[in-house]
Amino acid sequence: MDLIETKFLKLAADNAPGQETRINRIGDSGSVVALKGGELSGVPVDFSHGDVDAFLPSPGAQEAFVAGYASGGRQAYTEYRGGRQTRQDLASKLAAFTGKPIENDDSLILTPGSQGALFLAMASVITAGDKVAIVQPDYFANRKIAQFLEAEITPVRLHYAAQTDRAGLDLDELESAFKSGAKLFVFSNPNNPAGVIYSEDEIGTIASLANRYGVTVIVDQLYSRLLYDGKGYTHLRAAEIDPDKVVTIMGPSKTESLSGYRLGVAFGSLPVIDRMEKLQAIVSLRAAGYNQAVLNAWFSEPAGWMAQRIAQHQAIRDDLVAKLRTINGASVRTPEAGSYLFPTLPTLSVSTLDFAGVLRKEAGVTVTIGTEFGPRHKDSVRLNFSQNHQAAVHAVDRMVQLIQRYR
Amino acid sequence: MDLIETKFLKLAADNAPGQETRINRIGDSGSVVALKGGELSGVPVDFSHGDVDAFLPSPGAQEAFVAGYASGGRQAYTEYRGGRQTRQDLASKLAAFTGKPIENDDSLILTPGSQGALFLAMASVITAGDKVAIVQPDYFANRKIAQFLEAEITPVRLHYAAQTDRAGLDLDELESAFKSGAKLFVFSNPNNPAGVIYSEDEIGTIASLANRYGVTVIVDQLYSRLLYDGKGYTHLRAAEIDPDKVVTIMGPSKTESLSGYRLGVAFGSLPVIDRMEKLQAIVSLRAAGYNQAVLNAWFSEPAGWMAQRIAQHQAIRDDLVAKLRTINGASVRTPEAGSYLFPTLPTLSVSTLDFAGVLRKEAGVTVTIGTEFGPRHKDSVRLNFSQNHQAAVHAVDRMVQLIQRYR
Repeated sequence: MDLIETKFLKLAADNAPGQETRINRIGDSGSVVALKGGELSGVPVDFSHGDVDAFLPSPGAQEAFVAGYASGGRQAYTEYRGGRQTRQDLASKLAAFTGKPIENDDSLILTPGSQGALFLAMASVITAGDKVAIVQPDYFANRKIAQFLEAEITPVRLHYAAQTDRAGLDLDELESAFKSGAKLFVFSNPNNPAGVIYSEDEIGTIASLANRYGVTVIVDQLYSRLLYDGKGYTHLRAAEIDPDKVVTIMGPSKTESLSGYRLGVAFGSLPVIDRMEKLQAIVSLRAAGYNQAVLNAWFSEPAGWMAQRIAQHQAIRDDLVAKLRTINGASVRTPEAGSYLFPTLPTLSVSTLDFAGVLRKEAGVTVTIGTEFGPRHKDSVRLNFSQNHQAAVHAVDRMVQLIQRYR
Repeated sequence: MDLIETKFLKLAADNAPGQETRINRIGDSGSVVALKGGELSGVPVDFSHGDVDAFLPSPGAQEAFVAGYASGGRQAYTEYRGGRQTRQDLASKLAAFTGKPIENDDSLILTPGSQGALFLAMASVITAGDKVAIVQPDYFANRKIAQFLEAEITPVRLHYAAQTDRAGLDLDELESAFKSGAKLFVFSNPNNPAGVIYSEDEIGTIASLANRYGVTVIVDQLYSRLLYDGKGYTHLRAAEIDPDKVVTIMGPSKTESLSGYRLGVAFGSLPVIDRMEKLQAIVSLRAAGYNQAVLNAWFSEPAGWMAQRIAQHQAIRDDLVAKLRTINGASVRTPEAGSYLFPTLPTLSVSTLDFAGVLRKEAGVTVTIGTEFGPRHKDSVRLNFSQNHQAAVHAVDRMVQLIQRYR
């Protein structure tokens, strides 16, 4: 096997969220799992991502796209970092949202999805052999991007299971990672998959450790608008931290259901954003020009729209958490933000990967296996509960029944 | 300067096509060039890219987008390699176009622009230290992607200047590069920037050399639908070549003026396409879902539409070539395809970069400097003549006048 094949083995995407339709067999080793009992009928639910037919794209988005198309060449061919007017507009909106000015619109770049922002940002800070601290569990691509860049990963645990007022970041492990020479720390806040929010104290400690050890921090705040129970949220960039060492990533794909346009934004450190644009010039050129216009409608949703969307998600969350807690031996922390549940399942007679296959095949329910978010999470699955409420409840009912069968 | 800064120095995008609006000064070394004579008035023309207000997006594209949006979640969340129906449809259209079956729709991936396809394809074949053969002159990103991947570049000259029935690839240099261990050969056909088509004999030789030395070939055929004077075109993938060693890249951004949607497609080698999907999963996830629907209208343009578009471009080409040939000491080969002119300018009193700055400032004419396409091309500039016909003619008039001033 040559170098490139070895490199790509680490990037296996077969079990990544959204790729389940490509899996035609049950079983992680080619073996067929013996099915127990008959199929459980019900509306199929794909918990691997949100359902934009249940939660429609935010008002004004498609109209903004159509207006962008109508404005022609100016919108089709923007600077690689994105159209100036849109960047200026976003800079002021995101400064207001995060509670700290954005120095100039050049310190903000539009990308094809927040995934695009994450890749560009990480590749603009670390290269082969550099050390990067990555939270476990966290978004699957953090680890895989580091692997693609041939960086050295130092895992930092998130003790998310206990229902406390902290996310549960292991600050000792974080400091050890920084001490041992980490150049970069990447984390999502709210955490994907656990749905927990880092406390003001945790953010403050991250900031002061980053300052002390000269570490750059990339924070993925994709879900920072979808907070439950009036929970507070501390923006890292507004903390006491060297502004050249922080990049914040956001995007309208999740809460606003605009994933079909692939839009993301990164803002903060001007030196890093400058490199990101250079890299974007050879990776995808720019976020699709017409699509960029959709961002003009972002953070301008009608009054009450966001509050309603949050309330609807919170109601689904509460129903699903209650169902999952009826499972003997399972545990789940109530998420404080976002639309993910990350329960730990009881011991089953099959692997979690096989169980996910059975669940898809016998009950029409798709979940993402925990190991996508870190190698320790063999007993967990992730559910994106941005779904039709009733369908989601019934799907978790079927999951509960199958867990009984496969104990 | 640390490693990452050194790495990004090579990726400077300041003079890349489309980035000229970011340049506020004249002069490549911070010095201000003394301006000679007054401003030359006229409609500003940006030859760095095509003008989609002059050549409108192909019929049916926006309607296909709107239909894609209306179909909701299915279109928003496709497999990372793109929606299955669109891939199947494209596989049969592109097989017909290139004259060879596409084995299955999995050997085709949709990407954010053909730029996205190029990055993913190159990164799926070579890694740090690998050798890659790159044509000079050729598309600017070929070289920069290789540099980002820390591959070792072996240049292969294209002797494009003579008006022959060959593109002019130096086949001896190509074989030397292959002999010395190149793992990959990347080239555009028709060539960007020179607008020349590789002859059947040249393509056959590339194929047989690739077979002999086990080299993978990525061919960027972005302009292969825009051929003048009934010129023939040989598709590399239809030649005698190991199908696992060829990736063909196309997209509707140029001839069809659909750049604002950022869509590309790569097809061929299944092992390489599989890796490209794994990498896309961490680089941009997928081509924007709604945008993918635009590809349903591609290769389905109304009868006569393409012939008319070609005739219009050919008329502009002929007028501009005639104007450029009036310049004493300049030379230009008549392009056989695509919408680029790549003239060599006479010796001027300022550098080509400074002249490009003067031209933009004094005459409202934007061109791309030749060194973006290879270090040897210091005396050339590239013009994308997919522009309003009259405006383009007048802009080249102004360029001719300024060349006289700066001799």
